[in-house]
Amino acid sequence: MTQKEPITVAITGAAGNIAYSLIYRICTGELFGNDQTLNLNLIDIEPALPILEGLIMELEDSNFHLINKILFTIDPFEGFRDADYAILLGAFPRNKNQTRKDLLGKNSPIFKIQGKALSLVAKRTVKVVVVGNPVNTNALVTAKYAENIPKENIVALTRLDMNRSLSQLSRKLTKNVSNIKNVFTWGNHSASQFVDLSNGYLLENSKKTPLTELVDEEWISGEFQKINQMRGKEVLLKRGKSSAGSAANAVLDCLKSWIYGTETYVSMGVISDNNPYNVPENLIFSFPCTCKNGTWKIAKDLKPNEFCKKMIKKNVDELLEERRIAFELLKD
Amino acid sequence: MTQKEPITVAITGAAGNIAYSLIYRICTGELFGNDQTLNLNLIDIEPALPILEGLIMELEDSNFHLINKILFTIDPFEGFRDADYAILLGAFPRNKNQTRKDLLGKNSPIFKIQGKALSLVAKRTVKVVVVGNPVNTNALVTAKYAENIPKENIVALTRLDMNRSLSQLSRKLTKNVSNIKNVFTWGNHSASQFVDLSNGYLLENSKKTPLTELVDEEWISGEFQKINQMRGKEVLLKRGKSSAGSAANAVLDCLKSWIYGTETYVSMGVISDNNPYNVPENLIFSFPCTCKNGTWKIAKDLKPNEFCKKMIKKNVDELLEERRIAFELLKD
Ligand SMILES: NC(=O)c1ccc[n+]([C@@H]2O[C@H](COP(=O)([O-])OP(=O)(O)OC[C@H]3O[C@@H](n4cnc5c(N)ncnc54)[C@H](O)[C@@H]3O)[C@@H](O)[C@H]2O)c1
Ligand SMILES: NC(=O)c1ccc[n+]([C@@H]2O[C@H](COP(=O)([O-])OP(=O)(O)OC[C@H]3O[C@@H](n4cnc5c(N)ncnc54)[C@H](O)[C@@H]3O)[C@@H](O)[C@H]2O)c1
Repeated sequence: MTQKEPITVAITGAAGNIAYSLIYRICTGELFGNDQTLNLNLIDIEPALPILEGLIMELEDSNFHLINKILFTIDPFEGFRDADYAILLGAFPRNKNQTRKDLLGKNSPIFKIQGKALSLVAKRTVKVVVVGNPVNTNALVTAKYAENIPKENIVALTRLDMNRSLSQLSRKLTKNVSNIKNVFTWGNHSASQFVDLSNGYLLENSKKTPLTELVDEEWISGEFQKINQMRGKEVLLKRGKSSAGSAANAVLDCLKSWIYGTETYVSMGVISDNNPYNVPENLIFSFPCTCKNGTWKIAKDLKPNEFCKKMIKKNVDELLEERRIAFELLKD
Repeated sequence: MTQKEPITVAITGAAGNIAYSLIYRICTGELFGNDQTLNLNLIDIEPALPILEGLIMELEDSNFHLINKILFTIDPFEGFRDADYAILLGAFPRNKNQTRKDLLGKNSPIFKIQGKALSLVAKRTVKVVVVGNPVNTNALVTAKYAENIPKENIVALTRLDMNRSLSQLSRKLTKNVSNIKNVFTWGNHSASQFVDLSNGYLLENSKKTPLTELVDEEWISGEFQKINQMRGKEVLLKRGKSSAGSAANAVLDCLKSWIYGTETYVSMGVISDNNPYNVPENLIFSFPCTCKNGTWKIAKDLKPNEFCKKMIKKNVDELLEERRIAFELLKD
């Protein structure tokens, strides 16, 4: 097999836990194909450089045949240069005594700089997946300052929320996940997220059965929502570390959908401009999306019920408040 | 694509670091193929069970379509049942004040029980890769007590040593690793390991150039050996954690070679019976091996030079001593 000219994949927070799960899987060719060579640009902050060097030693010792070049840096203006893809994992973790506002205060400036850097040095066609929390608002800040990059190119990861919902449904229905379609989350990647099953169906022998006929309403709006909202905390409690492998997996799923297309709806945190669901413009909001030819579209033909509308509103309010705080903080 | 009936893959130390890197890559189908469904049997000890549960939650949330069933247990007699493959990562870590003897004392009993369990409940055709240190002697103990399993089915991981040597050579020669052939290590996975380049060559445009013509003798027997011996420590120093991703990668490389065959020599720690290099019988020793149809063979036609013979002898002595200590400890 002849190999394709290298593409450049930039990853921030590359010394962190999600990166450790993600990078190896990218290096095997799982995401971009077994003939696609790669320049990896790994970005983290000064204190994490030794960890990054150790990771690079291990990547060298894995002899991945697709790796063309590995660069590491603390400077996003170097790290994003000519990037075809940028995966923004790097962020300050939230510690126990911090409010959401404190976290925004720590993280918004990071994504402001990274947005500027992307704008200046990445390819104009770069696809950006933001993962660091609070992810919706971080992605919005990135988009705001990445003036030369179309806002459509910047996506916040809400796929893990969708994946978690699917795994719960699969268990509840004792059916394979690949038979469960059109389940997605609205809004913020936070405890306010709302999983919408009203369009979901089970596909078996070409027959579609609506999920609402298979699971009772009370479970859907009660226990199910709660499990999904608490899933991240549960994993943290068990592992003593937050979700890393499943988050990396969701990043891969998100990019695979975006690049290779989808048949049914997937959750993506995307710019709200021109959406048909009364979400105000200029928010990064998780919508049901379909992808084709490397672009996403918000599903247009859904009819959220009253409860769903209420939950969308709740997420809108939360994200408006996050945006207000972040933009206030970033004012020059 | 129709899926194949599940095979059972048992992994000990499944809550540990190497496992966290390894299991996701196995779940993608990278090792056994994209049509091979899997039963995963995850084994660890009591205190690690919450971590294991957290891992399983994350695996569920990754919705791998190849997973048929996940079982977790602290009982190897349950965990190894019907195993087609067993990957033995679980071991006590060596802490600073421990001698090699202390470590053997902690770990030999683990591998004695696991050998017995494999013997009793695994498939007779099970392929076992031992990774937990001291890996050669742990594998020997496993083989001794796995009376119903052919000794050929139990291999100690020395592939990471080979991979590290290749990455150093690639850097030194500024050549792609895939062009460097027949480099391997003799003996123990310890600081005594000896990388043998005397059969190695660079393959370019169908032309083979012996490595000994490309790198000078002094570098080979001096700095090169030292870098390889110290590589694990270097990574630990940088990362603050020992090699995990690259070790998982080496496990995958080892199994791929064993299952799918090799063109040239690879390092495998295998039973020394009937070897042509004067290594005493009944040791697990890293030899240059070739694989075909799911079985390995020790390369027969090599002529180690005097220095190499001296290094083989050094490794033999070290492993005889490890064996003496372990078997003494395990005497009923
Ligand atoms: N969207 C989601 O679904 C989702 C899921 C899981 C985790 N997350 C978030 O992803 C982020 C990464 O998680 P993790 O477990 O890898 O965390 P981690 O703490 O292990 O790693 C974060 C890394 O980012 C680095 N970093 C901090 N500031 C940086 C900067 N300015 N530039 C570059 N790097 C920087 C840190 O040094 C660290 O190495 C966190 O914010 C986490 O909350 C999001
Ligand atoms: N052969 C090699 O090339 C190579 C390379 C790297 C690491 N290693 C060795 O691999 C082993 C695993 O490394 P790691 O980084 O994953 O270590 P780790 O400490 O992160 O994980 C080890 C796991 O084994 C578990 N364990 C301990 N005793 C057990 C038992 N009796 N049964 C089942 N599980 C048990 C522990 O609870 C832990 O979860 C270590 O011994 C390490 O020295 C070998």
